[in-house]
Amino acid sequence: MSEKNEPGSSPLAGVRVLDMSQYEAGAACTEVLAWLGADVVKVENPRGGDPGRRSYKDATDMDSWYFLLFNANKRSIAVDAKSPQGLDLIKSLAAKADIFVENFGPGVIERLGLGWEVLREVNRKLIYAQVKGFGRGSANERTLAFDMIAQAAAGLTSVNGFADGPPVRLGITLGDTGTGMLLAISILAALHRRAATGRGEHLHVAMQDAMLHYNRIGFSAQALRGKATARAGNKLVSGVNPPCGLYHCKPFGDNDYVCVYTSHNNPDHWRRVLEVIGRPDLIGDSRYATQAARVEREAEIDRLMSGWAANHDKYEAERLLGSAGIPAGAVRDTQELHDDPNFEERGIMQWIDHPVRGRFKMPGWPVQHDGATPPIRPAPMLGESERDVLAEWLGVIPPHEAAGSPGTGADGTKGGSQ
Amino acid sequence: MSEKNEPGSSPLAGVRVLDMSQYEAGAACTEVLAWLGADVVKVENPRGGDPGRRSYKDATDMDSWYFLLFNANKRSIAVDAKSPQGLDLIKSLAAKADIFVENFGPGVIERLGLGWEVLREVNRKLIYAQVKGFGRGSANERTLAFDMIAQAAAGLTSVNGFADGPPVRLGITLGDTGTGMLLAISILAALHRRAATGRGEHLHVAMQDAMLHYNRIGFSAQALRGKATARAGNKLVSGVNPPCGLYHCKPFGDNDYVCVYTSHNNPDHWRRVLEVIGRPDLIGDSRYATQAARVEREAEIDRLMSGWAANHDKYEAERLLGSAGIPAGAVRDTQELHDDPNFEERGIMQWIDHPVRGRFKMPGWPVQHDGATPPIRPAPMLGESERDVLAEWLGVIPPHEAAGSPGTGADGTKGGSQ
Repeated sequence: MSEKNEPGSSPLAGVRVLDMSQYEAGAACTEVLAWLGADVVKVENPRGGDPGRRSYKDATDMDSWYFLLFNANKRSIAVDAKSPQGLDLIKSLAAKADIFVENFGPGVIERLGLGWEVLREVNRKLIYAQVKGFGRGSANERTLAFDMIAQAAAGLTSVNGFADGPPVRLGITLGDTGTGMLLAISILAALHRRAATGRGEHLHVAMQDAMLHYNRIGFSAQALRGKATARAGNKLVSGVNPPCGLYHCKPFGDNDYVCVYTSHNNPDHWRRVLEVIGRPDLIGDSRYATQAARVEREAEIDRLMSGWAANHDKYEAERLLGSAGIPAGAVRDTQELHDDPNFEERGIMQWIDHPVRGRFKMPGWPVQHDGATPPIRPAPMLGESERDVLAEWLGVIPPHEAAGSPGTGADGTKGGSQ
Repeated sequence: MSEKNEPGSSPLAGVRVLDMSQYEAGAACTEVLAWLGADVVKVENPRGGDPGRRSYKDATDMDSWYFLLFNANKRSIAVDAKSPQGLDLIKSLAAKADIFVENFGPGVIERLGLGWEVLREVNRKLIYAQVKGFGRGSANERTLAFDMIAQAAAGLTSVNGFADGPPVRLGITLGDTGTGMLLAISILAALHRRAATGRGEHLHVAMQDAMLHYNRIGFSAQALRGKATARAGNKLVSGVNPPCGLYHCKPFGDNDYVCVYTSHNNPDHWRRVLEVIGRPDLIGDSRYATQAARVEREAEIDRLMSGWAANHDKYEAERLLGSAGIPAGAVRDTQELHDDPNFEERGIMQWIDHPVRGRFKMPGWPVQHDGATPPIRPAPMLGESERDVLAEWLGVIPPHEAAGSPGTGADGTKGGSQ
């Protein structure tokens, strides 16, 4: 990132985010803003903080890995929003913030007295962003939603899995993170507009609605066929150009597969495949010469591919196909990815030193800005940034330091996390 | 959208995007910018244009549904980038653009003579954004990648599906659209920085790297267990709080399931479930009282849930569970979602009048800005915007109109698509 060359020049340096998000949909959104240089301050309840700290935990009392991976580069203050003093403090911070994010259950933030109608009076420039499960004005608007509920309700589950099996939840939390990414886009667009207008705005996204956006491939197949898009396993829901799919490689473990895709827009892929699998005799054979012909004989083509794949390990298969100009990739598991040093060499994964968990590696922001990805800092301990945030945002100096202990105070010169 | 109140005030109004993207990863990125008000001009080859126009096509010669869903709100000009005149024209447009986006195969844009090193000399303020399959400096950097390759190579495939089955490609094109969303975030962050510095920058994202971002739940489970995250079907890869999963509802069709999730952070969900399924006698029963106890008896709990679900259709099950405060949602298929008028009432799906395809409905940008989503305009026909774009961006007036036919010309007053 160019901040290496120019200290303080992260893309979002100087942008303040008051972050009342929890778990993942909101937290993933504000983590991106933090990675890109915004000062993101999590406001957490003093009784344990963001419940994500306790989600999917091991037997220790340390913050969960789940929390650590979705809250990097942020700061934390502990505030009881249900006390009058806490509420006042949050409003004071909102007056200094550019962006406010929350993803509580339906109606919670309004009952706390921190709804859009309230905070816009506190700060006319505030961009106020909310994530809910179902949209305002939908029959389910009061229903609690978590990731897998949004996936199911938006049809992702219906198109995932095999035609002869049940619908399957995506193995990732797209309902959360995918929604958070869309909200981040709208927040940054609103920030752009605000530079011209001086006005904040109210952003609202429902997880179900956000998941429709990620299901557009399903809707295009629906339009093509005029009926509900069916599950297609390792083929494509929109139609296929054989060979396409996963082929089992030696030594035939759970994830020993190579994924192969050939494009309907490049007939030469099929010729290249025949060279690689040692069947140049079939080049030009009319039984396989067109996409339609190969669709007709897909089972036969899959047997050819499987027979070849069985003689190679997945990385060898990837290399042989890839170097011949055929889109291909080995199925990797999380352990293989974690252990691959290339991701850290390129700044895609980074090592973190956490004060309690110690040293570990995690994925950061994958987009390179001028050749480098942003550096990752560990997620905050609950309430650890209170003094710095109060000093920097509000100019409040703790009484016993008012005489001026070095390096702290309202002038913000400490500001260690920026 | 507040543009209803203030004409021309879309968040990104006035931002110019020179769009050399094709298919989906780049096209999804620039479509978002277009929805939010940027003037996105697709530069397409005159011989058919973006190959996405022909992807997953029906038997007609009309643009594919796939193209229409990923290129709304854009304009199109046809330019032969391989001719000297075409190359000059693209450079002239780049001089007027704020953002440039491309996702050709490795090395293609540089061979065309439109690499970052060239265009930065043309326009120092240009934000130059690229999508590739694999990262620069990775072993696969020259390998062609399509959506499912990126999914496989980033471990999404390894965590999707059932433990006793093979890895499964996600039924959606997250490798494409998911990457495009991350690039859009970096583009808008760069635009924010540029307002202060006056400098453009070079953005680069690889689909494999972007997919690691969406697999953070897999990496947090990996950190928790110290081994590769396994497929968990309709449970969670990170661990589960029963009941959790999909339960088959009458009339037992392919997508007649209700999805139920109970939170480990809210023990009351289990009590509510017992009330709804008519087993209040089990409230407080120590055999099920804790998460650990329910994990122990998960198969038994799933049988209880399945027995109840079998007596209801999925929407009834959703309503009964949801109104009792239990996170729940019916699995919907694309047809049900397409036909549900609530999405159009809320602006999440919108009706389009396309000059060739006619009237159809598609999902748009799901985030509400000040209470409304942005309006959708149909994807452009190949080359249809040439005259307007040349006039508005370059001040070029076609010779036969130079005398000043009303409403067109270099002053940009026509600008129909803005």
